[in-house]
Amino acid sequence: MTSSLIYLAPIGSLIALFYAAYLTIVVKRSSEGTDVMKSIAAAIREGARAYLRRQYQAVAIFFVSMFVLLYILVFLGYINVFVPWAFISGGAFSALAGFIGMTMATHTSARTTNEARTSLNAALRVAFAGGSVMGLTVVGLGLLDLSIWYFLLDWVYRDLAEVARIQIITSTMLNFGMGASAMALFARVGGGIYTKGADVGADLVGKVEAGIPEDDPRNPAVIADNVGDNVGDIAGLGADLYESYVGSIVATCALAVAAGFGARGVLVPLTMAAVGVIASIIGMGFVRTGEKADQGELLKALRRGVLVAGGIIAIVSWIVIVSLLGWENFGMYFAVLFGLIAGIGIGFSTEYYTSSQYKATKDVANSALTGHATTIIQGLAVGMYSIAPFTIIIVVAILAAFFVTGGLTSFNLGLYGVGLAAVGMLSTLGITLATDAYGPIADNAGGIAEMSHQSPEVRQRTDALDSLGNTTAATGKGFCIGSAAFTALALIAAYREQVFLIADDLGIPLVLDLSIINPKVLGGLMIGAMLPFLFSSLTMNAVGRTAQSVVMEVRRQFREIAGLLEGKTGAKADYAQCVDICAKAALKEMVAPAAVAICSPIVIGLLLGVEGVMGLLTGSLLSGFTLAVMMANAGGSWDNAKKYIEEGNLGGKGSDAHKAAVTGDTVGDPFKDTCGPSLDILIKLISMVSLVFASFIVQNALF
Amino acid sequence: MTSSLIYLAPIGSLIALFYAAYLTIVVKRSSEGTDVMKSIAAAIREGARAYLRRQYQAVAIFFVSMFVLLYILVFLGYINVFVPWAFISGGAFSALAGFIGMTMATHTSARTTNEARTSLNAALRVAFAGGSVMGLTVVGLGLLDLSIWYFLLDWVYRDLAEVARIQIITSTMLNFGMGASAMALFARVGGGIYTKGADVGADLVGKVEAGIPEDDPRNPAVIADNVGDNVGDIAGLGADLYESYVGSIVATCALAVAAGFGARGVLVPLTMAAVGVIASIIGMGFVRTGEKADQGELLKALRRGVLVAGGIIAIVSWIVIVSLLGWENFGMYFAVLFGLIAGIGIGFSTEYYTSSQYKATKDVANSALTGHATTIIQGLAVGMYSIAPFTIIIVVAILAAFFVTGGLTSFNLGLYGVGLAAVGMLSTLGITLATDAYGPIADNAGGIAEMSHQSPEVRQRTDALDSLGNTTAATGKGFCIGSAAFTALALIAAYREQVFLIADDLGIPLVLDLSIINPKVLGGLMIGAMLPFLFSSLTMNAVGRTAQSVVMEVRRQFREIAGLLEGKTGAKADYAQCVDICAKAALKEMVAPAAVAICSPIVIGLLLGVEGVMGLLTGSLLSGFTLAVMMANAGGSWDNAKKYIEEGNLGGKGSDAHKAAVTGDTVGDPFKDTCGPSLDILIKLISMVSLVFASFIVQNALF
Repeated sequence: MTSSLIYLAPIGSLIALFYAAYLTIVVKRSSEGTDVMKSIAAAIREGARAYLRRQYQAVAIFFVSMFVLLYILVFLGYINVFVPWAFISGGAFSALAGFIGMTMATHTSARTTNEARTSLNAALRVAFAGGSVMGLTVVGLGLLDLSIWYFLLDWVYRDLAEVARIQIITSTMLNFGMGASAMALFARVGGGIYTKGADVGADLVGKVEAGIPEDDPRNPAVIADNVGDNVGDIAGLGADLYESYVGSIVATCALAVAAGFGARGVLVPLTMAAVGVIASIIGMGFVRTGEKADQGELLKALRRGVLVAGGIIAIVSWIVIVSLLGWENFGMYFAVLFGLIAGIGIGFSTEYYTSSQYKATKDVANSALTGHATTIIQGLAVGMYSIAPFTIIIVVAILAAFFVTGGLTSFNLGLYGVGLAAVGMLSTLGITLATDAYGPIADNAGGIAEMSHQSPEVRQRTDALDSLGNTTAATGKGFCIGSAAFTALALIAAYREQVFLIADDLGIPLVLDLSIINPKVLGGLMIGAMLPFLFSSLTMNAVGRTAQSVVMEVRRQFREIAGLLEGKTGAKADYAQCVDICAKAALKEMVAPAAVAICSPIVIGLLLGVEGVMGLLTGSLLSGFTLAVMMANAGGSWDNAKKYIEEGNLGGKGSDAHKAAVTGDTVGDPFKDTCGPSLDILIKLISMVSLVFASFIVQNALF
Repeated sequence: MTSSLIYLAPIGSLIALFYAAYLTIVVKRSSEGTDVMKSIAAAIREGARAYLRRQYQAVAIFFVSMFVLLYILVFLGYINVFVPWAFISGGAFSALAGFIGMTMATHTSARTTNEARTSLNAALRVAFAGGSVMGLTVVGLGLLDLSIWYFLLDWVYRDLAEVARIQIITSTMLNFGMGASAMALFARVGGGIYTKGADVGADLVGKVEAGIPEDDPRNPAVIADNVGDNVGDIAGLGADLYESYVGSIVATCALAVAAGFGARGVLVPLTMAAVGVIASIIGMGFVRTGEKADQGELLKALRRGVLVAGGIIAIVSWIVIVSLLGWENFGMYFAVLFGLIAGIGIGFSTEYYTSSQYKATKDVANSALTGHATTIIQGLAVGMYSIAPFTIIIVVAILAAFFVTGGLTSFNLGLYGVGLAAVGMLSTLGITLATDAYGPIADNAGGIAEMSHQSPEVRQRTDALDSLGNTTAATGKGFCIGSAAFTALALIAAYREQVFLIADDLGIPLVLDLSIINPKVLGGLMIGAMLPFLFSSLTMNAVGRTAQSVVMEVRRQFREIAGLLEGKTGAKADYAQCVDICAKAALKEMVAPAAVAICSPIVIGLLLGVEGVMGLLTGSLLSGFTLAVMMANAGGSWDNAKKYIEEGNLGGKGSDAHKAAVTGDTVGDPFKDTCGPSLDILIKLISMVSLVFASFIVQNALF
C-alpha cells in the first residue's frame, strides 16, 4: 500500500494542472467585452508580461551565478550534486507558476468587467475561476517538482536500504526550497516595489495634486498601477505561497526521518497534499451566489468553498494518518487539525482588525476627524494590537501540535507534529490561494470598468467584487504570514536535524548548545530580530524613491502634453513611460534587500557557527512575523477606513477626514503590499540558505 | 582590604547626595527673574508636584496590595522575609529620586531663562547644575538603598560562612529591583501619557487649528504641556535609569557568586559605582563654554564632561579589577571597557540618525515636500534602519565581553563579564543623566521665555540651549535603551542562576532545556516578542485618547472664554482644567499596560514553567529593544526635521512641507516620549517580576 500511495502526489499534481487548463478554456471562452475594454486589458497584459520578462532576465543572472557557486560547493564536497539542479528547477517552477497565474489574471479582469455588465454571479464566477487557475497551478507545479525529484532520487539511490534511501532523499530535497525561495523574494520584493511605487506615485499626483479620481485614464501612471496589481499581488503572492507549500512539505518529510517514521512519514504530507488538490477542486464548485448578493453573501460564497475543502481534509487526513502511521499515532491527526484551525483563526482575526464592519477600523476612520497624525497613530496602534491574537493562535497551535503528538516524551515526534500542522494549514492551498488571487483580479476589473466608462450599475457590481477582494486580500496576507511562520519553524527544526546528519557523516563530534543564554545564540537572535526591520526599511525606501520618479514623470506629462489634464480628445497619456520607470526601479531596488537576505545567514554562520545561525533564524522569525502582521493589518485597516469614509461616512469624499484617511492609506500601501509580504519570504529564505550552506558552515565557522 | 572597600559604596552615595545638596543651594541662590517668570514657574512647579503627589497616591495602592501579596508568599515560604520590605524601599527611593529631581528641574527652568538674559554660559551652567542634581540624586539614592540592605543583610547573616552569606545576600538583593521597576513603570507610562497627551493636544488645537505659536500663553494647555516635560521627561527618565543602575549592579553581584568570585566579585560593581560618582562630579566641572558658543561648542562642552568621567572610570577600573579579582582576570577590565565604549557608540549612532546635520534626518525633511504620507514613510524607514548599527554595537559588546572574560571555557565567568559591561556602561550615570535631564530643563526655560515675552536675544539663547537639549534627549534615550538591554540580559542570566539555587534548596531535580527549539521556550519567545507591540499599542492609544480630551477642553475654553483667542487683557485661560484632565487620564490609562507587564511572566510561568519564562524574557528583550530604538529614532528624526524646516529650509514655517513635518512630529511624540521609553521598563520589569516569583513558579508550573 505504502508504495502505491506515493503515486498520489503526481496524480494530484496532474489533476490540478488539467483542471487549471480546463478552467482557462472556460474563462477564455467568454468575451473580453468592447474594443476599448480589450485594448485596456491588452495594455495591462502587455505591461505585466513585459515586466515579468525583464524580471526573469535579471533574476536569471542571479540564478546562473548562484548555480555556479553551488557547483563549486559540489566540487568542494559540501553539497550533493543534485542541489544546484534542484535549485534551478525550484526557481523555474516558481517562476512558471507566477507567470501562468499572472497571465491568466490579466486575461480574466476584462472578462469579469464584461460579465458584470449582465450579472453579478457570472462576474464572481469568472473572477474566481481566474484565481482558481492560479491556485491550482501553484499546487500542481509544486507537487510536480516534488514528485519528479522524489522518483528520480528514489531511482538513483535504489540500491540503498530503505531508511538510508529515505534519509538521503529527504535531506537532498530539503535543499530544493532555496530556488523557489529566491525566486519568491525577487517576485515579492520586485513586484511589491513596482506595484506600490506605481500606486503611491499615481495617487500622490493624481488624487492629491490634480484632483482626478482613481483609475482615471488621464493619469499616465494608471496602466502602471494596474500592471502593478498583477505583478505584485498575483505573481508575488503565488511565488510566496509556492515556497511555503513546498517548504512545509519537504521540511516535514525531513522531520519524518528523525521521528523514526521513515517512508511512511514521508508519504503523509505528500498524500495530504494530493488529497488537498481534490478537496480544493470540490470546494471551488461551492463558490456561487445569487444575483442580489450583498457583500456578506459574496463573502459567504467564498468562505463556503474554503470550508468545504477544509472539511474534506479534516475527514480524509484521519484515514491517511491512521492507516500510514498506525492507531498509536492518532495524535498526529490532531496536529493537522490544529494547523487547519489556526489557518481559519488567523483569517478571522485578520478580518476583524481590517474590516470596517468592526470597531478597530471604525476607530481608525474616526481618528481621521482629528487629522493626519492621529490617523497614523491609531492605525499603527491597531496593527500592533492585532499581533496579540495572531501570536496567541500560532503559539497555541504549535504547543498543541507538539504536545498532542507526544513531544514531551519524544522531541522528534513533536517536531514532526508541528510540521504536519504546517502541512495541514497549507493542504487546501489550491482554494485559499484562489480566493486570495481573486482580489487583484476584481481590483483590475474595477479599474477597467472605470477606464472604459461603464454605466454606474456595472461599476457598482465591480465595486462590490473589489470590496470583497480587499477583505480576501487582507485575510490572504494573514494566511501567508501564518503559513510562513509555521513553515519557517519546521525548516528551523529540519535545519538542526540536518546539521547533526552532516556532522555525523563527517565524523565531527558536534555538540550544539542552543540555549538562549548562550551568547552565540543570543547574538544570532539579536541580529535576527534586527533583520526584518532593516529589510523593511530598505523596501520602504525603495517604494518611496520609485513613487517619487513616477510623480516627476506624471507631472512632466501633465505639463508637456497639451490638453491631457483637461481630458481633450486626442491628448493621450504616454502610459509606457511610467511602466518602464516602475520596472527599472523595481529591478534596481530589489538587489539590496536580496543581498541582505542571502548573505546574512552565511556571514553569521561563519562568525558564530551553527548556534549563531539557529539564533539568527529564530530571531528573524520572531520579529519578522510580528512586524509582518502589524504592517499587513495596519495597512488593511487604513485602506478600509478610507473606503468607509468614501462610502459617505464622517464627511465623505473630499472632506478633511478623507484627506487624512488617504494619508493613512498611502502609508499603508507599502506596509501591506511590499514590506509585510516580503518579510514572509525573508524568514523562509534565510532558513533555506542556511540549509544549503549548512555543511560549509559546519566545517568553516570561526567560533 | 576587601572589607574596607565595601565602605566606598555608602561613602560614594553620601558624596553624591551632599554634592547634589550643594548644587541645589548654588542654583537656588540665583534669581528666578521677573514676577511674571516667577508666577509661570510656580504654576508649572505646582502642576508637576500636584501630579506626582496624585501619581504616588495611586501607586501607593498598588504598592500596598503588592506588599500584602508578597507577604503571603513569605508566609507560604516562597520568598525571603526581607523581599516585601525591599520592594517597598526600592519603590520609595525611586519615587524620592524622581520627586527631588523633578522639583529641582522646576526650580531651575526660570532661573535658566533669567541667566539667559545676561549670558549664555551662565544659563548653560545653571541648567546643567539643575540636571546634575537629578543625576547625582539618582545614583546617590540607588547606592544608599543598596548599601543599607547590604550591611543589614550582612549583619543578619553574620553567622554564616562567607560564601553562603554572600550567596543569600545577593540572591535576596536581586529581588529588590522589582520595587524600583514597578515605580519606574508608573513614572514612565503615566508621565509619558501625561506629557504627550498634553503636548499633542496642545499642538493639534493650538498650532494646527488656531494657528498660534508653541508655548503661547493663550493656549489653555500650555501649562499642562510644560508640566508634562517635567513629569514625563524628568521624573520618568530618572526612575528608568535608577532601575537600570540598581538592576545592573544587583544582577552582576548575583552572577559574581556563580562565577566563583564570592565577596570580591560583589565588591567590583559596588566599588565601580562609587568611583563613578566621583568621576561624574569631576566631569561636571568641565561643562562650561564661552559666551559666543554655537550649537557645536555647547555640545562639545557637555561631551567633554562625559568623556572626562568615562576616562577616569577607564583608568580606575583597571586598578579595581586587577586588585580585587587578580591579574589572571584582567579580561574583566576589558568587559567594563566594552560596556563604556558601547554606551558612547550608541550615543553617536543615535545622534547620526536624529540630528538634522546628517543625511538621515535631511531625507525626512525632504520627504515632507511630497506630503504627509511620504514624511511618515521616510521617518519610519529611518527609525527601522537605525536599529541595525545599534544592534550590531550591542551584539559586538556582549560577545566581546563574554569571550574576553573567558566565557568559552567557563560560562559563568562570561556572564559575569556581560554584567560588568552593563555596570561599566552605567557607572558614570551621574553625569550622563545630568546631560539627559538638562534637556527638559532647557525646553521649559524656552517655554518660560516665550510665555513671559522675553526679547529676541534671550529667546535666541534659550533656543540654542533647547536645541542642544533635543540632541542630548535623543542620545539619552538611546543610552536608556542600550543600558536597559544590557541590564535585562544580566537579569535574565541571574534569573537562570536563581532558579537553580531555588531548585537546589528545595531538593527538586531541575533540568532546564533552554534550547530555542524547545516549544515551551519558543512559545515564550513568541509571546515575549509580541508583548512590546501590545504594550506600545496600549500606550499609544492612551496618548491618543488623552490628547482628544485636551483638544475638546481647549476648544471649549476658546469658545466660552471671551477674548481669550484674541489675546485681550483680562481674558485668562483656565490652565488648571487641562492639568487636571491630563493627570486623571494618565493615572487611568497606566493601569492596563502595567497589568500586562506584571501579569504576563506569572501567567506564562504557570503555563509553561521556567523554560517558558526564559523564552518570554528573551523574546520581549529582542522585540522590545528593536521597537524602542525604532520609535526613539524615528521620533527624534521627525522632531528635528520639523525644526530644520522651521529654521527656514524647504519653505520654512507655514509651508505645506512644514505642515507635513508637523504631522511627522506629532506621530513621533508618543513614539519617542511614551511608547519607546516605556519599553525600556517593560523588558526590565518582567525580569524582576519573574525573579520574585521564581520560587512560586518552580513549584507550581503546570507543565
